[in-house]
Amino acid sequence: MREYAAQPVIVDCDPGHDDALALLLAVGDPRLRLLGVTTVAGNQTLDKTTRNALKMLALAGVTDVPVAAGCDRPLVGDLSVAEYIHGASGLDGPDLDLPVAEVADVHAVELMRREIMGSTEPVTLVALGPLTNVALLLRRHPEVAPRLHRIVFMGGSTDRGNTTPYGEFNIVTDPEAADIVLRSGLPTTMIGLNVTHQALATAEVIAEFRGLGTRLGAVCAELMTFFASTYLREFGLADPPVHDPIAVAAVIDAAIVRTVAAPVVVELTGTHTRGATVVDLHGRTGRAPNVDVAVGLDVDAFWRLLMAAVRRLGAAETHGPARSDGTSLPGTG
Amino acid sequence: MREYAAQPVIVDCDPGHDDALALLLAVGDPRLRLLGVTTVAGNQTLDKTTRNALKMLALAGVTDVPVAAGCDRPLVGDLSVAEYIHGASGLDGPDLDLPVAEVADVHAVELMRREIMGSTEPVTLVALGPLTNVALLLRRHPEVAPRLHRIVFMGGSTDRGNTTPYGEFNIVTDPEAADIVLRSGLPTTMIGLNVTHQALATAEVIAEFRGLGTRLGAVCAELMTFFASTYLREFGLADPPVHDPIAVAAVIDAAIVRTVAAPVVVELTGTHTRGATVVDLHGRTGRAPNVDVAVGLDVDAFWRLLMAAVRRLGAAETHGPARSDGTSLPGTG
Amino acid sequence: MREYAAQPVIVDCDPGHDDALALLLAVGDPRLRLLGVTTVAGNQTLDKTTRNALKMLALAGVTDVPVAAGCDRPLVGDLSVAEYIHGASGLDGPDLDLPVAEVADVHAVELMRREIMGSTEPVTLVALGPLTNVALLLRRHPEVAPRLHRIVFMGGSTDRGNTTPYGEFNIVTDPEAADIVLRSGLPTTMIGLNVTHQALATAEVIAEFRGLGTRLGAVCAELMTFFASTYLREFGLADPPVHDPIAVAAVIDAAIVRTVAAPVVVELTGTHTRGATVVDLHGRTGRAPNVDVAVGLDVDAFWRLLMAAVRRLGAAETHGPARSDGTSLPGTG
Amino acid sequence: MREYAAQPVIVDCDPGHDDALALLLAVGDPRLRLLGVTTVAGNQTLDKTTRNALKMLALAGVTDVPVAAGCDRPLVGDLSVAEYIHGASGLDGPDLDLPVAEVADVHAVELMRREIMGSTEPVTLVALGPLTNVALLLRRHPEVAPRLHRIVFMGGSTDRGNTTPYGEFNIVTDPEAADIVLRSGLPTTMIGLNVTHQALATAEVIAEFRGLGTRLGAVCAELMTFFASTYLREFGLADPPVHDPIAVAAVIDAAIVRTVAAPVVVELTGTHTRGATVVDLHGRTGRAPNVDVAVGLDVDAFWRLLMAAVRRLGAAETHGPARSDGTSLPGTG
Repeated sequence: MREYAAQPVIVDCDPGHDDALALLLAVGDPRLRLLGVTTVAGNQTLDKTTRNALKMLALAGVTDVPVAAGCDRPLVGDLSVAEYIHGASGLDGPDLDLPVAEVADVHAVELMRREIMGSTEPVTLVALGPLTNVALLLRRHPEVAPRLHRIVFMGGSTDRGNTTPYGEFNIVTDPEAADIVLRSGLPTTMIGLNVTHQALATAEVIAEFRGLGTRLGAVCAELMTFFASTYLREFGLADPPVHDPIAVAAVIDAAIVRTVAAPVVVELTGTHTRGATVVDLHGRTGRAPNVDVAVGLDVDAFWRLLMAAVRRLGAAETHGPARSDGTSLPGTG
Repeated sequence: MREYAAQPVIVDCDPGHDDALALLLAVGDPRLRLLGVTTVAGNQTLDKTTRNALKMLALAGVTDVPVAAGCDRPLVGDLSVAEYIHGASGLDGPDLDLPVAEVADVHAVELMRREIMGSTEPVTLVALGPLTNVALLLRRHPEVAPRLHRIVFMGGSTDRGNTTPYGEFNIVTDPEAADIVLRSGLPTTMIGLNVTHQALATAEVIAEFRGLGTRLGAVCAELMTFFASTYLREFGLADPPVHDPIAVAAVIDAAIVRTVAAPVVVELTGTHTRGATVVDLHGRTGRAPNVDVAVGLDVDAFWRLLMAAVRRLGAAETHGPARSDGTSLPGTG
Repeated sequence: MREYAAQPVIVDCDPGHDDALALLLAVGDPRLRLLGVTTVAGNQTLDKTTRNALKMLALAGVTDVPVAAGCDRPLVGDLSVAEYIHGASGLDGPDLDLPVAEVADVHAVELMRREIMGSTEPVTLVALGPLTNVALLLRRHPEVAPRLHRIVFMGGSTDRGNTTPYGEFNIVTDPEAADIVLRSGLPTTMIGLNVTHQALATAEVIAEFRGLGTRLGAVCAELMTFFASTYLREFGLADPPVHDPIAVAAVIDAAIVRTVAAPVVVELTGTHTRGATVVDLHGRTGRAPNVDVAVGLDVDAFWRLLMAAVRRLGAAETHGPARSDGTSLPGTG
Repeated sequence: MREYAAQPVIVDCDPGHDDALALLLAVGDPRLRLLGVTTVAGNQTLDKTTRNALKMLALAGVTDVPVAAGCDRPLVGDLSVAEYIHGASGLDGPDLDLPVAEVADVHAVELMRREIMGSTEPVTLVALGPLTNVALLLRRHPEVAPRLHRIVFMGGSTDRGNTTPYGEFNIVTDPEAADIVLRSGLPTTMIGLNVTHQALATAEVIAEFRGLGTRLGAVCAELMTFFASTYLREFGLADPPVHDPIAVAAVIDAAIVRTVAAPVVVELTGTHTRGATVVDLHGRTGRAPNVDVAVGLDVDAFWRLLMAAVRRLGAAETHGPARSDGTSLPGTG
């Protein structure tokens, strides 16, 4: 059974294959207390990312974490989803036909506000999709700012992008939202492609998931197998990078990533570079550092953390105990 | 006594001298039913614009319209107020030291949402400042969209601007918010500088205000006298344009302005033109019309409307009648 | 016979209907000495604008002014011609099948350089098309700068544009070239749409051309008749504005236009405003004035000037005198 | 004596420490025939980069290669030199007080044109500074295009920049010129920071220069020692990257670099990314490849090539007659 530990977190996400693993890590590691999951349009449309979040929680046997849907489009401009990477469902690959909980009858921004204001400890916001919900929260409810411990987001890059040559998907999808977050003055950690491209779901990783012998392990293996197929087709990468779980891992154990404090701005106006995170690693712009930018990753420690969480959650499957609400855990028959 | 008529409106504003007259028109004309006043940072900081809105309502003897404060900065970027036009208080000129009502204990966006969702008829949103609150409402509460009759905003221009050569203050202050509103698909009317610069507070206008013989008339005269002084200094204009009341007037009587349906986009990226409203009057861009753009103004009819409202509100001063809620009107001794 | 007067000028152009009249004014007014005509791609492709310049000079009976072709595209980006305004030939309307002189065997930039450096008096450069040639001249031959009296260009606007809502054709076609000219530090006069739209080729004007009873007058009438038809179709204007001759007129008689010194920059980066001339008439940008911007036009004086030139050139037709070089004037049978 | 080989090249440069070595390679390798050296403002002002080019040729004992000065500023915008990297002279470090040849009495663009049109074989243009001269050549003399074999430029990056986070100095200095070159349709090779940062002037490299026992070797060692000091201070790099000689090396022996054909555009409009080279390595933009982009470097082969050239030039020194200052002239034997 999940044991509640010190760090209260909210995960804002748009699952998405790597978001899916990130959710498993967030619910599977005892050092995090997940107050809520909020969803945003990004990898797929809002209805799909929301459904995918519900599915992953159900699969993990988690029924007590509220899931709230948020923005169905970026602050400015139109939504362009990443179906070419995540498939028509946003989570193509495994068969995820299982009963899921209801989505909360409250907007993501309101769920965030409520949990943050209601928490006795400062909350860490882990943002794994476009930063639309987070930006909206900061503008609509500025009172939450002093109650936040930190924002850790997966997004951007110190070097190349994946959606445009210099733009990473989450930031390119809603550059203005990212700008709002980066200028907020809040402690912020950026987990960019420069580190996430070091955490590759190799054949060995996939085998290890499968080797766990649980339904969850099998699903993880199937997710990564599909993910690998699209990364190979689109980027010629044999092993896909597992972006989002690294942001969760960095909250669990800060030693997982090495960071440097640096000035980061989002390019809002470039014809070919809109949405690029412009990271001034050498102090050439004269700006003050505003972000702790991940520049190194302890790859082995990361995989140990993630694998342990999936193993722990999977272990619960076999016991198949009734939940407090009387439903049985998914995956236990 | 103000008689409640058919059209329910919410006025979002940042008073501001011309906003002040616009509020008087909104509460003084029987064809409007003012559901609420919301404030935004713009001409001055949020605390000042909110206080100024409360003062104008108090001065008008209106105690039953809730006033809620909204955003204290634009969605993206920093706030730059127009102190050089509206003075340190945002409403310099007259002595406005009078008891005012309390601001509502709710955010402007929530007040808007509540009033719109609670109204039996579709509501017209009259926006007289930067469109920050309105944009936030549309993104945070998309459910209000079908309940809105129309958005009428004072802002932009079909030709020259006032804050930059092609940029008008409200739009330049929050271009992204304007972009969100203009792309919302909602019926939208733009009252730009091209028409508001036809409604000048000439010496005759000021004399007419003063000639009303009421405290309110005197305050209007003093407001316009101060306004004239800054416009003369900053733009070499002897008579200042009275922008915001025209948007209210256009709601009261659509015949006050002549409009054409045209494609309008906000320039978000120009080095020298950020915040310009780019109005395609000759169909050269191939875009579909998204805004009813005011291109003509019935100047005389406008002044008659405004003067009648101020006269009507002033008349209440001398009778000093008790309000329905049992309080006496301010300014009636 | 044309009498050579004090002011040496070079006309850089892309005829074009209004350029055609401008050329007639430049060769028909005794107060100008036309050192050369250079052509640029703009209203049509370079080969067509060059041929049109040769035709107009031939029609005017001018054989001693060299014509040199220049750039066939803007400095940056692709050429987009105005065939919808000027027709397939760039000078549609009249039958202009007449023998023309050879184009000079030298690039426009080299002809300009040669004439400027060879002139005993400072030369005025009159630019009636995209500023590509002029910008290239300034960058390639900076030594000409102190030998220039002034650059007078038709282009830009203090208010609305004609190609985009805020962009005028010549500047939109080559914004970087305009930027180079405007930042050159040279005395520069801008004749923008804000004044040229006051000089309309009305039915009366066209009748007056025709009433001259000369071949040239008839051609002018036919040119303006065609021009009127495209302006009516594209802009709903019954009478087309005669842009380019005003720039020539302003050189002949400075009193034709009223100017103010103002800071002018070209918008190079706007998504919807690239190529707009941003004219700071109220000193809001804090920049130093760099351009004498035409803000008023003596319409009657302008038409008298132009009509007189066409009459003078036409008079030569009927007398059919031998030229100094022994050739007879074209158009005299 | 230098032996003339097959490949005719022109080197356009702005020395600059690494340009200096590039010039030595260009004159010291027998497989190149250097038709001319042209200079441009960049690392330092034009007068300094020109003087530095003359000095390096003199030092190398080369007296028969014309040097012509070109543009003293970028096409658009103001010049900003890299004094913080190359020092006040643009070539700080060694004492280079030696008699130099006269600069050619012709503009760089004219020298290029003349040599290209006069060459029996297609010429390779090696551009080591801002692309101002090259862009001007292409616009002013389009007739040279079919006579060019290829343009090889040092500039840009597939990942991070050095002047801004995503901008490399040469391209940032004149983005429009780079745009003109990249859109020219000519065969173009880009040698960006992504490969040049692999060629580091380590202590071993510097020792090897010194160990050559020639004046030229000593000068190279002193140049790199100074270069190392500024790179350490500005970028925290112990060993400075030797950018420019790689472009020359790639002409001498194409196997030195590995290239991929890719679409490359220059960002002209970004607030924080102007001048970035946006290299689409994964075909995400749908554009056609226009540049052969260097993505790999044979570091050892490169150093062998460069060292051999400096050794060869230095060997000539020993035959040289006494100079007025008592030293012997290189390469005049």
